[in-house]
Amino acid sequence: MANQKNHEIRLKSRPVGLPTSDNFEVAETAVPTPGPGQVLVRNSYISVDPYMRGRMIDRKSYSPPFKLGEALQGHAVGQVVASNSDAAKVGDFVQSMQGWREWYVAGGAEVQKFEPAVPIQSYLGALGMPGMTAYAGLLRVGALKDGERVFVSAASGAVGSIVCQIAKAKGCYVVGSVGSDEKAAYLKSLGVDKTINYKTCGNLNAAVAAAFPEGIDVYFENVGGTHLEAALYAMRPFGRIPFCGMIDMYNAVEPPPGPNNLAMIIGLQLDLKGFIVSSHYDMLADFHRDMAAWAKAGKMKWRETVVDGVENAPAAFIGLFKGDNVGKMVVRVGPDKAV
Amino acid sequence: MANQKNHEIRLKSRPVGLPTSDNFEVAETAVPTPGPGQVLVRNSYISVDPYMRGRMIDRKSYSPPFKLGEALQGHAVGQVVASNSDAAKVGDFVQSMQGWREWYVAGGAEVQKFEPAVPIQSYLGALGMPGMTAYAGLLRVGALKDGERVFVSAASGAVGSIVCQIAKAKGCYVVGSVGSDEKAAYLKSLGVDKTINYKTCGNLNAAVAAAFPEGIDVYFENVGGTHLEAALYAMRPFGRIPFCGMIDMYNAVEPPPGPNNLAMIIGLQLDLKGFIVSSHYDMLADFHRDMAAWAKAGKMKWRETVVDGVENAPAAFIGLFKGDNVGKMVVRVGPDKAV
Repeated sequence: MANQKNHEIRLKSRPVGLPTSDNFEVAETAVPTPGPGQVLVRNSYISVDPYMRGRMIDRKSYSPPFKLGEALQGHAVGQVVASNSDAAKVGDFVQSMQGWREWYVAGGAEVQKFEPAVPIQSYLGALGMPGMTAYAGLLRVGALKDGERVFVSAASGAVGSIVCQIAKAKGCYVVGSVGSDEKAAYLKSLGVDKTINYKTCGNLNAAVAAAFPEGIDVYFENVGGTHLEAALYAMRPFGRIPFCGMIDMYNAVEPPPGPNNLAMIIGLQLDLKGFIVSSHYDMLADFHRDMAAWAKAGKMKWRETVVDGVENAPAAFIGLFKGDNVGKMVVRVGPDKAV
Repeated sequence: MANQKNHEIRLKSRPVGLPTSDNFEVAETAVPTPGPGQVLVRNSYISVDPYMRGRMIDRKSYSPPFKLGEALQGHAVGQVVASNSDAAKVGDFVQSMQGWREWYVAGGAEVQKFEPAVPIQSYLGALGMPGMTAYAGLLRVGALKDGERVFVSAASGAVGSIVCQIAKAKGCYVVGSVGSDEKAAYLKSLGVDKTINYKTCGNLNAAVAAAFPEGIDVYFENVGGTHLEAALYAMRPFGRIPFCGMIDMYNAVEPPPGPNNLAMIIGLQLDLKGFIVSSHYDMLADFHRDMAAWAKAGKMKWRETVVDGVENAPAAFIGLFKGDNVGKMVVRVGPDKAV
């Protein structure tokens, strides 16, 4: 390790609108040396997620803004390669929020060890935060009941594709909105009943209404804007709308206005509920149990879009807003197995 | 009664934008004769409410649209003046949905009798549907907890003024938004902590933020539009927004767009919940018990704006959208006591 260097991505300037590569810089540093009680971790994969866009702005927010000139933070999976701690030994697989970099040191008792049962990058996606987001958002926040009618936006993404499959596993009628025919085909392969390509469907309100002749019980909101408007027009009485994300808004310099049909919330007695996954980690054991059972029964599949090299993490992140990913977007920053 | 005539208000044409007197017509008919098992009721007061605007449009809705050429429907209080029924006798006070007219007949078992403990028009307001709307909306839908911070729009209205006082009775910090200094003074007389005159306060976002240095736990939504935007900017994490009405939208030919800050619902984990009072009548006994106790303790006051003559009901209704009323707007269409 003495000959190796660490590379990390730092926020160089705060993006206005869609981020560009100029907002980021790659920094080369020495691989850090673990102190007493510490471990050295080599990251294998790091996660890029739409929510990170919010932390790139300096404003009052539920999460503290990223600092300029420092390595960004995010989920990562890797392996302990040196240890001065009894709590974690060389070879242990660990998860952390020390993403956007190749190497890091941390207290041995602070790293979250896990036993990989599937390729480790899946612990950043279907079996990690995005999967848990889908699970808690649909089942608890959205209070899904078996056999209901479910609409999912950004449906082929890291969260959306899991939402679709949980809903199918619960016997629901599921329609997913996507931005390409390739993504639509992927969703169909997952068992989704119908897909809407919002880029080619013409009037989205009409397309959603046509896909739901009996209306929508749960709309899983990942997008905002015209998707929310179309869903509201098609909601059934007492429908629920878990607000998971609004990717249409994240890069807006001047956010576009909201839908003009919010008054429908009253007459239909709808429940719109925002949530953050960290409020629902008491469901983690249920999530792991159910995901394992569904996967075993062939009801749960997932895919990652893998970009190689930490230096390409900014492009991977920017690609999230261009629809570059099917399933979870991850960046490979080291070997799957370092030791 | 043989010499008397009934007058009723019929919907002549469907309003586009703010209703005008041309959308209504006064019809003179014979006072109806009660058949076997029926009673004849003379209405004393009828209710005009903002929600009726929605029923004047012919569209898919939770309530069936009013029919052209027929008397409108709405809450009314009156007295039985003739009876062919054992279920109700002459002199009984009754509530019904047979408003917008002076006289009606109904099955004796179908009229809802009540024992007035206060002037009967209050059973159209504080002790009737609007009061119950405030009670269920704030306590159940809004899940108010003692001592929270509450923002109320249209705060001097039939619903808003009761919401404010329930919140005060629960030890809350309460700010009400109104459209005149007279209404603001009325709210202060009810014990409301602060008022905002949205017509003169300048930037509403700034005014609401200034009134809530610690943020809003519950925003009781009666208005929509810029009020919703301002409330969203000031909400505390896990805040609740019961959607009771959106009077700013009801007369819009092309509804204005919604707020551009709906993404805040996610980060703050807000709960926006539409409701209709009829879904919550299981709380009626609690409502009556609590209102009586609060009134006795001097914590609950109300006012009606009374317009005279059924022929003026359209003007009273239109006045709701011009801010003509303080407290409940009712129309006197007969004597308080007919027999």
